[in-house]
Amino acid sequence: MVRCSPVCRRLIHKLDATKRSICARSMSIDLRSDTVTLPTADMLRTAMEASLGDDVMGEDKTVLELQEYMADLTGKEAALFVPTGTMANLAAILSHCNTRASDIVIGSTSHIALWEGGGAANLGGVHTRQIIEDEDARMDPNDIIDNIFPDADDHCAKTTLLCLENTQNMLGGVALPPSYMSAMGKLAKEHQIKSHVDGARIFNAAIAQDVSAKELCQDIDSISICFSKGLGAPVGSVLVGDSEFIRLAKRARKRLGGGMRQAGVIASMCLYAAQHNIDRLEDDHRRAKMIASELQNAGFFLPRNGQVDTNIVYFGLPADTDISKQEFQMKLESEFHTLLTAGYSKGGELFRLVTHMGIDDEQIEHATDGIVQLAKKI
Amino acid sequence: MVRCSPVCRRLIHKLDATKRSICARSMSIDLRSDTVTLPTADMLRTAMEASLGDDVMGEDKTVLELQEYMADLTGKEAALFVPTGTMANLAAILSHCNTRASDIVIGSTSHIALWEGGGAANLGGVHTRQIIEDEDARMDPNDIIDNIFPDADDHCAKTTLLCLENTQNMLGGVALPPSYMSAMGKLAKEHQIKSHVDGARIFNAAIAQDVSAKELCQDIDSISICFSKGLGAPVGSVLVGDSEFIRLAKRARKRLGGGMRQAGVIASMCLYAAQHNIDRLEDDHRRAKMIASELQNAGFFLPRNGQVDTNIVYFGLPADTDISKQEFQMKLESEFHTLLTAGYSKGGELFRLVTHMGIDDEQIEHATDGIVQLAKKI
Amino acid sequence: MVRCSPVCRRLIHKLDATKRSICARSMSIDLRSDTVTLPTADMLRTAMEASLGDDVMGEDKTVLELQEYMADLTGKEAALFVPTGTMANLAAILSHCNTRASDIVIGSTSHIALWEGGGAANLGGVHTRQIIEDEDARMDPNDIIDNIFPDADDHCAKTTLLCLENTQNMLGGVALPPSYMSAMGKLAKEHQIKSHVDGARIFNAAIAQDVSAKELCQDIDSISICFSKGLGAPVGSVLVGDSEFIRLAKRARKRLGGGMRQAGVIASMCLYAAQHNIDRLEDDHRRAKMIASELQNAGFFLPRNGQVDTNIVYFGLPADTDISKQEFQMKLESEFHTLLTAGYSKGGELFRLVTHMGIDDEQIEHATDGIVQLAKKI
Amino acid sequence: MVRCSPVCRRLIHKLDATKRSICARSMSIDLRSDTVTLPTADMLRTAMEASLGDDVMGEDKTVLELQEYMADLTGKEAALFVPTGTMANLAAILSHCNTRASDIVIGSTSHIALWEGGGAANLGGVHTRQIIEDEDARMDPNDIIDNIFPDADDHCAKTTLLCLENTQNMLGGVALPPSYMSAMGKLAKEHQIKSHVDGARIFNAAIAQDVSAKELCQDIDSISICFSKGLGAPVGSVLVGDSEFIRLAKRARKRLGGGMRQAGVIASMCLYAAQHNIDRLEDDHRRAKMIASELQNAGFFLPRNGQVDTNIVYFGLPADTDISKQEFQMKLESEFHTLLTAGYSKGGELFRLVTHMGIDDEQIEHATDGIVQLAKKI
Repeated sequence: MVRCSPVCRRLIHKLDATKRSICARSMSIDLRSDTVTLPTADMLRTAMEASLGDDVMGEDKTVLELQEYMADLTGKEAALFVPTGTMANLAAILSHCNTRASDIVIGSTSHIALWEGGGAANLGGVHTRQIIEDEDARMDPNDIIDNIFPDADDHCAKTTLLCLENTQNMLGGVALPPSYMSAMGKLAKEHQIKSHVDGARIFNAAIAQDVSAKELCQDIDSISICFSKGLGAPVGSVLVGDSEFIRLAKRARKRLGGGMRQAGVIASMCLYAAQHNIDRLEDDHRRAKMIASELQNAGFFLPRNGQVDTNIVYFGLPADTDISKQEFQMKLESEFHTLLTAGYSKGGELFRLVTHMGIDDEQIEHATDGIVQLAKKI
Repeated sequence: MVRCSPVCRRLIHKLDATKRSICARSMSIDLRSDTVTLPTADMLRTAMEASLGDDVMGEDKTVLELQEYMADLTGKEAALFVPTGTMANLAAILSHCNTRASDIVIGSTSHIALWEGGGAANLGGVHTRQIIEDEDARMDPNDIIDNIFPDADDHCAKTTLLCLENTQNMLGGVALPPSYMSAMGKLAKEHQIKSHVDGARIFNAAIAQDVSAKELCQDIDSISICFSKGLGAPVGSVLVGDSEFIRLAKRARKRLGGGMRQAGVIASMCLYAAQHNIDRLEDDHRRAKMIASELQNAGFFLPRNGQVDTNIVYFGLPADTDISKQEFQMKLESEFHTLLTAGYSKGGELFRLVTHMGIDDEQIEHATDGIVQLAKKI
Repeated sequence: MVRCSPVCRRLIHKLDATKRSICARSMSIDLRSDTVTLPTADMLRTAMEASLGDDVMGEDKTVLELQEYMADLTGKEAALFVPTGTMANLAAILSHCNTRASDIVIGSTSHIALWEGGGAANLGGVHTRQIIEDEDARMDPNDIIDNIFPDADDHCAKTTLLCLENTQNMLGGVALPPSYMSAMGKLAKEHQIKSHVDGARIFNAAIAQDVSAKELCQDIDSISICFSKGLGAPVGSVLVGDSEFIRLAKRARKRLGGGMRQAGVIASMCLYAAQHNIDRLEDDHRRAKMIASELQNAGFFLPRNGQVDTNIVYFGLPADTDISKQEFQMKLESEFHTLLTAGYSKGGELFRLVTHMGIDDEQIEHATDGIVQLAKKI
Repeated sequence: MVRCSPVCRRLIHKLDATKRSICARSMSIDLRSDTVTLPTADMLRTAMEASLGDDVMGEDKTVLELQEYMADLTGKEAALFVPTGTMANLAAILSHCNTRASDIVIGSTSHIALWEGGGAANLGGVHTRQIIEDEDARMDPNDIIDNIFPDADDHCAKTTLLCLENTQNMLGGVALPPSYMSAMGKLAKEHQIKSHVDGARIFNAAIAQDVSAKELCQDIDSISICFSKGLGAPVGSVLVGDSEFIRLAKRARKRLGGGMRQAGVIASMCLYAAQHNIDRLEDDHRRAKMIASELQNAGFFLPRNGQVDTNIVYFGLPADTDISKQEFQMKLESEFHTLLTAGYSKGGELFRLVTHMGIDDEQIEHATDGIVQLAKKI
C-alpha cells in the first residue's frame, strides 16, 4: 500500500470520503487512463431498474433502447452494443472487409495498428497499409490514394476501408476537425472504399470543437464509441453505421463471443453515461490544458508545442533531468500519490496522463505540483 | 402481445406478480433456453456493492475474487472471466492451439462444431476433425485415436486438442459421467494433446450425477463455464485451466475484445450465481424429467428412449400428428403461452425445451398439458 | 538399395532397360500412388519446344493454350494453371468462399477434409461441416440440406459450398456416376450455394463410366484436375469454372505463391498428358480390378465386396494372418520389390495400392503373386 | 504486333535470330522486369536429363541436390524448393511466426508489405509493424526496437520476426551492405526474434558488393532466393535456414499447395541457373548504371541522386515534360520497341526498368536513346 507523504494528507482524507473502490491504488490520483473511472451510485441504480431480456434473441429492451439512442445521436441507421471498444473496432473491420483478402489503410500510430493485438490480421486476416500521420494526426490524402488498390491487381489485396481515429490517442488526444473528417469520408467514397472512425473518445472530439458527433461523422460510414472511457460507464461500447453493416457486425459479434444475454444490465449504465456525462467532458479538457500549460512553463517537453485538444497530455521531462522514466513514475506514485503512464507514446520516450470524471481541480493541482517538484528535485 | 386463453388466466396473474421483465414474451412460460433467466433482486444488489477496478489492468477485486473462486471450485490453477461462453470456448481453442496449423478433434454435434459461427476456423484458423457421437454423446476412443496426427505428416495439420461437451446439448442435455471424462482426459494426455470441456452446463452434469465439478474434470485440462444459463446470471462465463493456459487465454481475450474495464459489475452477479444457484439445478432436472415422462406416455417421440439427464428435453410429435413444427410452435404460444424451440436438433426434426430457475412446477404442468392437448386436437 | 530375390530377376532386368529414374526405389514395382509416374521422353520433349512467356503477366502461350484446352474439355468458361492439386482445391475454396465466415459441406473422408493440412481452415478460415459418406462415397442429400445455413442465423457461418470428390480416394477410388454428380450440383444450386469437385482423378471417373468429363461435371461449378497422378505429368493441376470464379482464383493463386513465371515449361507436359494419356487410364483400371479379384479370391478383405471402379485398391490381410501392416509392407518390398501404402485408409487398417502408367501387366502379376505368397508364408 | 520504326530495324533482325519466344512482345526490348527472361537451350536440356522422383515423398534427387547446393552456397543447414518467391516468403513467415498472434517488423516499402497480396495477414494471420526506410533502404534500429513487443503485453501481438529485403526493389534495387545485414541480424537475436531476408535478388546484392551470399547472410536466420529473376530460370525459388525452420516450412509448403511431385524437372534448371548465371549479373548492373547515368545527364530525375547499385533503375521524366506516364510508356513501346513499367514505385510517380540476361549492350543503347529522344520530342 502506498505510504502517505505530508503534502497530500488533506487530499487523501477527501479521497477516503468520496471513493468507494477498495483497489490498492484507489487512494491515488489516477491519471493513467480515463478507463479507470468507477460508476457512480446513480449510474449503478439504473442497472437495478433496467428492463432485461435475452439480447442474443433481440429481446433486451434496454440494449435496444441504447442502440436506438446512439444511432440517433450519431445520425446513423443502426447501432450494436458490444462489450469493448476493441471488439467494436474489430467487428467493424470484419464487416467492412467482408470479402476475402481485404486491405485497410490506417494511421501508423493508430490504436488499431498498435494496441489491439494485431487482431485485424490474426483474427480477421486483414492486412494494413500504414500511413504516417503528421503531428496533428492527419494522413496526407495523396498517401492514402497511393495505397488504395482495386480488385484487379493480383499482387495486392483489395483495399476496402480507411480508418481514422478521433480523438487520436497516441499523438496527444488530437481532435480531428469536421472538415478533415468530412474530406476523408468523401475521399473514401470517391475511391469506392468505406470509412470507419475509431471514436472511442468521439465525444471528447465533439465537445472540444463545439460540434455534434452527428455533424462530425456525417460523411463517415461507421464509428465505434466507448462508454467506459471519459463517459464513466464500467463496461460497454457501441458500433454505429448502416443497417446492413450492423447486421454483419452482429453476426461477427456472435462469432467473437460478444453476444451477451441480459446485456441491458450494463447497457443501462452506458445509456446513463450517454445521457449525463458528455457535456462534462469539457471539464476534463480544461484540466488537461491546465496541467499541460503548467508543465510547459516549467520546462517540460510537450508535443505540438503544448497544444492540448482534449483530455490526454503527453510530456517529456525537462532536458537536464537525470532520471529514468520508470524511476520518475515510481517516485511520483510513492511521494505524490499520482499515477500516470510511462512510455506509452510511439517511441516510448514520453509520459501520458489522462483527465477524467474521477479527477477534480484540486487533484489536478496536486498532481501538477508533484510532477514539477519531483523534476526539480532530481 | 400474446392474448390470454382461459386456461391460463390464473397463471398469467401469477406471472405478473413475480416477474419484472417487460419483454413482449415475458408473461409466457419460456422454455426456449435457460439463457432467458432474469437476474433476481438479490443478485442485482451484489452489483451495486461490488468492489470495482480496471480489470484490463488486473485491478478489479470482484473479478479476481470470482476467478479465484471458480479455479478452486473446479480444481484448476487459474481462471479468466469473459463475457460469453462462446468467447470462453474460442479463447480456449486459440490458447491450446497456440501453434499454427493445429487441428482439434470434436464431436460432430457439439455446440462448437455447429453453433459458434465456425469461429475456431474463421477467427482461429483451426481445422476440426469431427467424430460422430453415439446417442449417449460418447465418441469412440478408436475414432479419436485415428484422427490424432503428430507434427510429422505434411499432409496433416498437427492435432493439439480434444474437445468434449458436458452436458452435451444437441443430444439431449446428456451428462457425461466422471469415468468417461477421465478416460478421455487420459487418452488425450497419452497422445500428447490437450483436453477441453465445453462446460457451459457443467454444474448440471455434476449435480445430475452427484459428483463435484472438480472431480468430474480432474483429468481435463480446461473447462468453459457459463453463468447466464441455468445459474441465472445476466452476463458472464469463465474459463479455467493451468496458469500458462490462462495467461494465453487472457491475451486472446484482449484481442477478441473481451477485456472489459470495471467488469466486477457483472462478475459480482456471476459469483452470486455460483454461490447460490448450483444446488437448485436439481429442481430443473426433476421438472425436465417430469415433462419428458409425460410426453413419452402421451405418445411423443423422445430420444434415448426417454432418458433425460438434466434440464434439456428433445421430443418429436406423436407419429400420426399432421402439423408442421412451426405451426405447432405458434399455436403453443398463442393458445398456451408456452415457448419452445422448433428444429434446433441435428437434422431439425425435433422440438427442444429447457427448464430453468424462471420456471416452477405449476408452469411445467401447464406447459405439459398444453403440448399434450395441442397434439391431441390436431 | 533393394536386393534382388530370384523370382524377379527377369523383371528387374526389364526395369533397368526401360526406366530412367535413379531413385533408390526405381527398380521396384511402385504401387504407392499414381503420383510416382515419371515423364516420358516424348512428354519431356514438349517442354523443350514450348512457347514461353511470363505467366504472371498473362504472356505464356503454352499456359494459355493448356487453360483453354482444359476449359473446353470440361465445358467450363475458363481455367487456371496451378502447381498442385492441393492449391487447386484451396484456391477453389478461397474463391467460392469469398465472403468472410463461410462454411463448406464436405465428405468426412474426403481428401480436402483429411489430407490437405487443414488449409481450408488454417489458411482460408473456412469451417467445414463434415458428412459421413456411405461405402459408395455418396453423402445423403438430407444430411447436406440439414447442414446448409443461410446468412441469417448469427450462430452459424454462412454455407457457401458443397464439395465432392470424384474419384473418391479414401473409400477406394470410387467413381461417382453422372446422375449423382448432377443431383448434387442441382441440390447446391437450389440452396444458393456452389459446388466444387476435387477431380484430381476426374478422368479416371470419366473413363471408368464411359462418359466425358464435360458431361460428368455439367451441373458442377468448379473442378480441380491433377496432371501428375494417372496422367503422368511431373507437375501441375488446373482449376476450371466460370470466368469470375477463375479471376478470383487467379488472385488467390498469386497470394498463395502459385503465380509462376515461364510456367509453360511444365504446362506443356500437362497439355501433352491431357492429349495422350487419358484413354490409357482404362489399362490401369483393368489392372486394378485384376489384382483386386485375385486378392479377394485368395481370402484378402476388400471393401465394397471387392468392387473396384478405377485404379485404387484397398485391402486387408486374410483374417488369420499374424503380421503387422508395417512388417508386411517391409517384407513385400525386400522380398518382392513391391511398394504399397500401409494404413492410408480411414482408420488405418488397410493397405492401398494404385495402378498407373509405370506399371504393366507383368508387374501386376508379379506384385499380386508377391502379396499372396507373402500372406501365405506367414 | 508492334510495328517497326526505322531506327531499330537492325535490332529487330537480331532479335528474330536469337530469341525463341513467340510472345506478342517478344521482339521488344523488354525492361519491365528480370522475370521475363526465357530459359536458354542449355538450361532446358538439363530438364531432359534430370533424375526425377516424387518430391512429396522426398525422392526427387534433383530437388535434393538443388536444396543441398543452395544450403551450402548460403551457409545454412537446409533448404526447401518452392514454386515462387512469394511462396518462399510466405512459408518463411508462417514458419518463423509459428505461434498464434505473431507480429513482424518490416519495411513499409518492402515487397512483402506491398506486393504479395497481403498474404502474411490474409493467409497467415500475421500483423505487420511497418517501418519507414531511408532512401538507402535502411530502417532505423531504434524504430525497430520500439516496435518489438514481448509475449507479455496483452495489448500487443508478440513480435517474432524482422524482415529485410536485399536487394530492396522499390527504393531502386538497393544493395544492403554486409555490415547492415549483420547488425540487423544481431539486433534481432538480442531481442529474441528471428530475421528473414527476402533475397529474391540476393545474388545481385552479393555480386554488386563483391561479397559472397554466405557472408552477406551470416547473421540472418533465413533467406528466400528466386531463380526466375536475374538468374534466368523459368520457375522456382528456395528458402534456406536451419533444419527445424525448414521442416516447418516444408509442412507449410504442403498446405499452401507447393508440394510438387517430379519437381526435379524445374529444379534442374534452377540448379543450372545457380551454377552458371550468378557471375554474369555484373553485366546487368553495368548496363543499369549506364542507362541511369545517361538518363540523369539528359535531365531525368533519378532517386538517390542517380546511384544505382544493381539491375533496377527508377526514373522520372525531365521537369518540363508534358506527357502522362501511360502515354510515355505507350509511345516508347510503339516507336522504340522498348517496354518498361510505369508507376510501380511507391507513390507511383516513377518509371522502372530492369536489366537482365535477355538484354545486351546494343539493346540498352537503343532503349536509352529511345527514352531520351521521346522525352525531347514532347
